[in-house]
Amino acid sequence: MTLAGKTCVVLGAGGFIGVNVCAALTAAGASVRGFGRRPRFAAAPRVDDWIEAEFGDNAALGDALRGATHVIHLLGGSNPVIHNAAPVNEVTANIIPSVGLLEACRAEGVSRVVFLSSGGTVYGPNAPVPTGEGALTDPISAYGIGKLAVEKYLGLFHYLHALDYRVLRVANPFGPYQVSGRGQGFIAQAMQRAIDDRPIEIWGDGSVVRDFIYIDDVAEAVVCSVADTGDARLFNIGSGKGRSLLEVIAAIGEVVGRSPIVNFRSARAADIPVSVLDIERARHRLGWAPKSDWTQSLISTRDWLLANPVARSQL
Amino acid sequence: MTLAGKTCVVLGAGGFIGVNVCAALTAAGASVRGFGRRPRFAAAPRVDDWIEAEFGDNAALGDALRGATHVIHLLGGSNPVIHNAAPVNEVTANIIPSVGLLEACRAEGVSRVVFLSSGGTVYGPNAPVPTGEGALTDPISAYGIGKLAVEKYLGLFHYLHALDYRVLRVANPFGPYQVSGRGQGFIAQAMQRAIDDRPIEIWGDGSVVRDFIYIDDVAEAVVCSVADTGDARLFNIGSGKGRSLLEVIAAIGEVVGRSPIVNFRSARAADIPVSVLDIERARHRLGWAPKSDWTQSLISTRDWLLANPVARSQL
Repeated sequence: MTLAGKTCVVLGAGGFIGVNVCAALTAAGASVRGFGRRPRFAAAPRVDDWIEAEFGDNAALGDALRGATHVIHLLGGSNPVIHNAAPVNEVTANIIPSVGLLEACRAEGVSRVVFLSSGGTVYGPNAPVPTGEGALTDPISAYGIGKLAVEKYLGLFHYLHALDYRVLRVANPFGPYQVSGRGQGFIAQAMQRAIDDRPIEIWGDGSVVRDFIYIDDVAEAVVCSVADTGDARLFNIGSGKGRSLLEVIAAIGEVVGRSPIVNFRSARAADIPVSVLDIERARHRLGWAPKSDWTQSLISTRDWLLANPVARSQL
Repeated sequence: MTLAGKTCVVLGAGGFIGVNVCAALTAAGASVRGFGRRPRFAAAPRVDDWIEAEFGDNAALGDALRGATHVIHLLGGSNPVIHNAAPVNEVTANIIPSVGLLEACRAEGVSRVVFLSSGGTVYGPNAPVPTGEGALTDPISAYGIGKLAVEKYLGLFHYLHALDYRVLRVANPFGPYQVSGRGQGFIAQAMQRAIDDRPIEIWGDGSVVRDFIYIDDVAEAVVCSVADTGDARLFNIGSGKGRSLLEVIAAIGEVVGRSPIVNFRSARAADIPVSVLDIERARHRLGWAPKSDWTQSLISTRDWLLANPVARSQL
């Protein structure tokens, strides 16, 4: 697949997903412009151009979008748990600047916005498993409501102004450049703690099931979404397989070569017991499928953490 | 049905729906406190207490909610068309103060919020007809997105804080106290123009079908939602019948006693061709059904407009 001739602005290019998406877009031949805070890892893949600004800085955003054909929107909150304490923060930090972004895309003549939504939070606890895109959306986090609202504004701008879009409802991504100590990035956190021989903290009894997807597969879904010529716009992006936290911890133990210690903490209200996405639509209509091997993905994650000790201090 | 012992705060008590809801709640035995701008009609039914303030004035809101058991949330934008020109206004004028309202309800120990959502805008143009509550929600107006977002925050506060709620997705209400010249309140506008022998302006060719529901039936649904002890929380509230604008104009002509003149204007982007709600869930689980006779409802609407010439200047 070639993206030659396409100019992609990646919002949030310096973050975990952003760094990986920029690398994949560049590899596919796109011209890539980063927007946001710079990556904290010196070895992160370079992009052709960079605009360092905060989301909500509409002047900087207008500059960034000039001449762009595609916008990859990765910004907007990072934590499903924290925002529940003050739900209005999600509105001001995410929904409002996202609407501003769509206005700017329209003004600058961008042809398509690819938005990374959250397959793990938009559906809510009563969704069928695996969860298809047609399931009801009843989020139990302000984070999920924010993602859902941005999806709806994308639909509105498409309807009113023919601004094209793709929404990717991504499951739980993991892999190189993921750094987290705030309740997200379970695999990064657990892997680092296993390496350090420190206890892994989990909420609940470890039976919670998630759909962990390697970041290369997510980045490839973004590339497919830029190139896509179909008429479907909303896609689940997951691994196609659910794994309990205990299964993941056991697999990490195998990869690290020791049995991790686990501290069990009480379950969190924002946690859904089982979240696994149905990815048939993406397989058939986006021409995408997850390709990564589970164990090899864990090994790559381990190797990156070992090579980047700066990540350790964040965990 | 008696609401004795219940203290209901009605937000937006001075508006078309609010005046009628206050009357129905009072008749059912509730103690009623109004919040918002006062009704512009001196003959409007009185409530027990009134707090005159703008939505978003959280101090006034806290005062209004003290000791309340139920909150009826009728506020939040009035026009599906206008907000599409500046979608962010819907966020700041509706979503943010609604989240503030839920925080205040939680702080004051309110037991239930009844929210009037919009059955005509939350589903979008591709919904099956008649539209059930399980249909996908793809609004084509910022107004509809705002209503949907507030629904989701209600679900969140229920999940996190056990703040109970009912959502009523109301079709197109009409009847006494409806005054509109801004693209809403089609029946009020058309009736007044027919009375005045002025042309009725319609968008499109008049084949657009809507689900017009008499305001007494809507007010009764609110009373049922305050009293409800079931476990369903989301209900469509409609007449159960679709009527084209041309059918409505013909019926208005019968009631007014002359053939209305019609000016056809080009269709609006925010208009869905057909919107009719499936109301079986409300029939079976809320113990509610529309009772009003169509022609008698139009006669009551006509009589109110004739008795309130001040309304005429607004049209």
